[in-house]
Amino acid sequence: MGEPYCWRSRIRFSDTDASGRIHYSAMFRHMEAAEDEFLRTIGFPYAETEPASQLSFPRVHVEAQFVGPLHYDDEVETQVTVERVGESSFTLYFMSVANGAAVARGRITAVCMSIATQRSTPLPDGLAEALRAHRG
Amino acid sequence: MGEPYCWRSRIRFSDTDASGRIHYSAMFRHMEAAEDEFLRTIGFPYAETEPASQLSFPRVHVEAQFVGPLHYDDEVETQVTVERVGESSFTLYFMSVANGAAVARGRITAVCMSIATQRSTPLPDGLAEALRAHRG
Amino acid sequence: MGEPYCWRSRIRFSDTDASGRIHYSAMFRHMEAAEDEFLRTIGFPYAETEPASQLSFPRVHVEAQFVGPLHYDDEVETQVTVERVGESSFTLYFMSVANGAAVARGRITAVCMSIATQRSTPLPDGLAEALRAHRG
Amino acid sequence: MGEPYCWRSRIRFSDTDASGRIHYSAMFRHMEAAEDEFLRTIGFPYAETEPASQLSFPRVHVEAQFVGPLHYDDEVETQVTVERVGESSFTLYFMSVANGAAVARGRITAVCMSIATQRSTPLPDGLAEALRAHRG
Repeated sequence: MGEPYCWRSRIRFSDTDASGRIHYSAMFRHMEAAEDEFLRTIGFPYAETEPASQLSFPRVHVEAQFVGPLHYDDEVETQVTVERVGESSFTLYFMSVANGAAVARGRITAVCMSIATQRSTPLPDGLAEALRAHRG
Repeated sequence: MGEPYCWRSRIRFSDTDASGRIHYSAMFRHMEAAEDEFLRTIGFPYAETEPASQLSFPRVHVEAQFVGPLHYDDEVETQVTVERVGESSFTLYFMSVANGAAVARGRITAVCMSIATQRSTPLPDGLAEALRAHRG
Repeated sequence: MGEPYCWRSRIRFSDTDASGRIHYSAMFRHMEAAEDEFLRTIGFPYAETEPASQLSFPRVHVEAQFVGPLHYDDEVETQVTVERVGESSFTLYFMSVANGAAVARGRITAVCMSIATQRSTPLPDGLAEALRAHRG
Repeated sequence: MGEPYCWRSRIRFSDTDASGRIHYSAMFRHMEAAEDEFLRTIGFPYAETEPASQLSFPRVHVEAQFVGPLHYDDEVETQVTVERVGESSFTLYFMSVANGAAVARGRITAVCMSIATQRSTPLPDGLAEALRAHRG
């Protein structure tokens, strides 16, 4: 499966809070960007998957652990790994490093939903295969 | 026209940044809540106007001035005034006060857009009248 | 311990995303407001605890499950329960209901940190007691 | 003065709202990233200016005009121009283009503030010179 995908971003002032560090909810924006770019890399950017097939990918579970501080202007590297690929959902795992130390870990489970029925539906074959090919 | 509408809210930790004060962009969330509740008060909540009539109200201009600091947990009172009602757009003006002092002023201009044509269209009569009745 | 604390809020347009529903990360803002007001209710608002005692309460773990859709202008009721009170950390549990149905559940673990040492430190006695008194 | 600085970013799902387009307040995050990177380019990244000199740069005025729609996954190019350099404040102007068309314009005025006195103070010489050298 090769190297895990890695996304680089920077902590902006709007990501911080009055503690002087990142507000935890901002970490999810960085993870979301990493997810977007990872899916583009494996050939299934959401922007092309969604309108064509009338699918949506709501999150059913998200979590994050914070193991070190992140400050304004820190550069973060976020590794994305495919943790699980199910019939109609998948789980991505994120590990973020800054200044040489682990700072956060996260996990999101997205379900493939038909916009018409608002119910879960099997992942498109190509996407399921691509995700399996990059399973960590 | 009576008293201007006033919306009370609180500065949350997620609204602040590493300066220890509110991040300016968070002020727009408080103004948006004030706008929502003002429109509900005058009988035209967006949630009912939009789906029924296939209208959308994108902002074409927004601005804010910051004249005093806002900190975590400050209570803010935001007055909403109708500044201008045009054929297909309107401008609301916001004045926010905390701890007895002015802290921010803002202004948003929203245009009434047909979702089908993606072009501007006249304001619904009832909304235009209600806005005019509350013009500052 | 009596009734669990319940916080009412509304989904704003800025909380939604292009799926037409709430963006999951916005749910954490609603949970944070519920947490703030719950702590005020039990007599320990963060705004008073922090500056006095030079403590900060960073989150070390957060998670949320989404079990039903939330749309613009929905009213949400979020119940806050104390799940665990440790030596220097505590876990709150959130259950959100809208339109009579469960929509989200969440959990945050905050650690009590000395700003001077940037290390964890025991919860202030009063806060620990108040949290234990409201344990679910 | 050469070419204006240009920052590329992408509209994320968390930037959009239920209209299917960007939520206007998210545009300020993109402008803020452009500002950060522009200042780094001219040799005065905020992260180095602030702690050294005990200065903060609160915004006193911000505005944005929206002249075209931005959708999820659109690539945006934001040009940053120095519009004005005063004794203790400066104004930056932003022009954002996507898919070959103008989509937004913005302007922020930041004031240089002493953290100790919480009052405005002259811009550091080097920063003022660098900004003037890049005036549009």
